[in-house]
Amino acid sequence: MPAEGLAGLVIRAATQRDVPAVVALIYDDDIAAARESVPGADVDAAYLAAFQQIAANPDDLLVVGELDGRVVACAQVTLLHHLSRRGGTRAQVESVRVDAALRGQGAGGRLMSWIEGYARDRGAALIQLTTDKRRVEARRFYERLGFVASHEGMKRSLR
Amino acid sequence: MPAEGLAGLVIRAATQRDVPAVVALIYDDDIAAARESVPGADVDAAYLAAFQQIAANPDDLLVVGELDGRVVACAQVTLLHHLSRRGGTRAQVESVRVDAALRGQGAGGRLMSWIEGYARDRGAALIQLTTDKRRVEARRFYERLGFVASHEGMKRSLR
Repeated sequence: MPAEGLAGLVIRAATQRDVPAVVALIYDDDIAAARESVPGADVDAAYLAAFQQIAANPDDLLVVGELDGRVVACAQVTLLHHLSRRGGTRAQVESVRVDAALRGQGAGGRLMSWIEGYARDRGAALIQLTTDKRRVEARRFYERLGFVASHEGMKRSLR
Repeated sequence: MPAEGLAGLVIRAATQRDVPAVVALIYDDDIAAARESVPGADVDAAYLAAFQQIAANPDDLLVVGELDGRVVACAQVTLLHHLSRRGGTRAQVESVRVDAALRGQGAGGRLMSWIEGYARDRGAALIQLTTDKRRVEARRFYERLGFVASHEGMKRSLR
């Protein structure tokens, strides 16, 4: 698809109807596939319950990019209220995905730009995210947007 | 102070009265000092407002370690509800500090162990944090606790 094909891309808050498409996007990824459920006609109750928790929390937002009636990108944004940095709010971004067929055409940049505006409107002083060290292209993408890989992102499973 | 001096360490949720001591702990750090306000008898209204936001959100918790009536450690925990990992809740930990005079004696481990119990009780499948790459000792501390530095922690200032 040529770049101008993205002119109709709309970035917006997700609704419950978007959940199956978002789960499919999250799944369409070598790293995530190992831990996610296989997407299908039915979406696990666990995903719907998680969406309802996200929707009920004013600090949480699931964002999607829609093109020609189809969800082609997603991200989750959480506003964090902190004592450090003089009580500054931060926007944490996770689960950023763009449909494989549309990568490299600017959809991810459009999504991140929308998130930046949303975060600024809510007084955020900082956007932060972590990206798996195996995702070399993702790190370069975020660096082009001005992100600095200043921190180690450390995780520990509790299961 | 010998290690047994920590036997009286109590880990608990913070109250508004702890805010000045927490700000002082956050400030007592070369990296943070460059961006935090100087601690003093008065605590900025910005810090109190941030604490009130934290206290009002059931997914947010400011934790302190108290020893002999003095706040000697702190951390902030946020429960994140996600679509990825089958809707799993994650506990995000930030602003971990231990009084400089008490480091290396186990207070940080006690604090993180308390946070782990709190996170498990709330169904978290994962604990995550980022640590500045300049904090070499901090990374080793978290690795000893089982954290894996699998991700790049990327930040972008909006100011």
